[in-house]
Amino acid sequence: MNFLELCKKRQSCRDFASMPVEREKLVNCIEAARLTPSACNSQPWSFVVVDNPEKAAAVAQATMQFGANAYIAAAKAFIVILEEHAVLMPKIRGLFDSQHFAQNDLGAAAMSICYAAEDQGLGTCILGLFDREELRRLLDIPAEKRFATVIALGYPADGTVRPKGRKSIEQIARFI
Amino acid sequence: MNFLELCKKRQSCRDFASMPVEREKLVNCIEAARLTPSACNSQPWSFVVVDNPEKAAAVAQATMQFGANAYIAAAKAFIVILEEHAVLMPKIRGLFDSQHFAQNDLGAAAMSICYAAEDQGLGTCILGLFDREELRRLLDIPAEKRFATVIALGYPADGTVRPKGRKSIEQIARFI
Repeated sequence: MNFLELCKKRQSCRDFASMPVEREKLVNCIEAARLTPSACNSQPWSFVVVDNPEKAAAVAQATMQFGANAYIAAAKAFIVILEEHAVLMPKIRGLFDSQHFAQNDLGAAAMSICYAAEDQGLGTCILGLFDREELRRLLDIPAEKRFATVIALGYPADGTVRPKGRKSIEQIARFI
Repeated sequence: MNFLELCKKRQSCRDFASMPVEREKLVNCIEAARLTPSACNSQPWSFVVVDNPEKAAAVAQATMQFGANAYIAAAKAFIVILEEHAVLMPKIRGLFDSQHFAQNDLGAAAMSICYAAEDQGLGTCILGLFDREELRRLLDIPAEKRFATVIALGYPADGTVRPKGRKSIEQIARFI
């Protein structure tokens, strides 16, 4: 499968199957994140990977805010992405705050995880809304550590690719 | 090639060949970015794709700040990533500023571009340092529009994959 086919197939999974996720596949997701480029190779990330069934169920509860995201209850694993201090190169350091590029880099790492998961037959859903304090408690995450996103993972119950509601290339790109 | 092999092969290109880049391949890169997920499907991005040789040379000059990045002069194309207003879902809107997730989403889109390029044999380098005012002038970008990153593209002159200086999985991930 070429990469563009992978992009077309990848979608936010709304229906996870009951099959558990192999630890090896989660390690491959982290490997993809690890190899992601970042500003000055600062690697401003760390990851908590949760596949213990009881812990995963508790993490799911902490992400199902406002009565929405009920489908997350069936996710079999989670990767919590945390923001770490970014050490930029000396010549860059004076120009930008250390964390200036961190959100961009964290988004890139999250995307690598989603593609690595999809390539291994796993569905993903990136979550931005969750009970941070509950996740700290459950996963022993220090109070000063900042969360980026949480990725829910599992095998999709249904392989159907939904149409993607996106703007057209003409709406988003200009060629010069 | 599976996705993890693509991750291992992808590196910031430091030596671009003189061969021009086919427009079709750049369109494929934009297609990968277009299909990238974003918070509430807000798609907070637009792209200026520059492959006209004279314009590309001028963009290269605007990104070669502080005497560094001299290798960028040989890049044959650029994709300038701009931040657009993000419309979040009503229930999310009250909780976060509209642009709260935008940098994360812009980083994800940039990563999609780099993988799509690599999969087509192209090298990339994501640049965070550039002369914004000069780029506005060259590419007719309105004063209020915010830049994310600029991606330099071209065929790599040398296919050697350098060792990647990254923290180990043990240093960045905890499995629960």
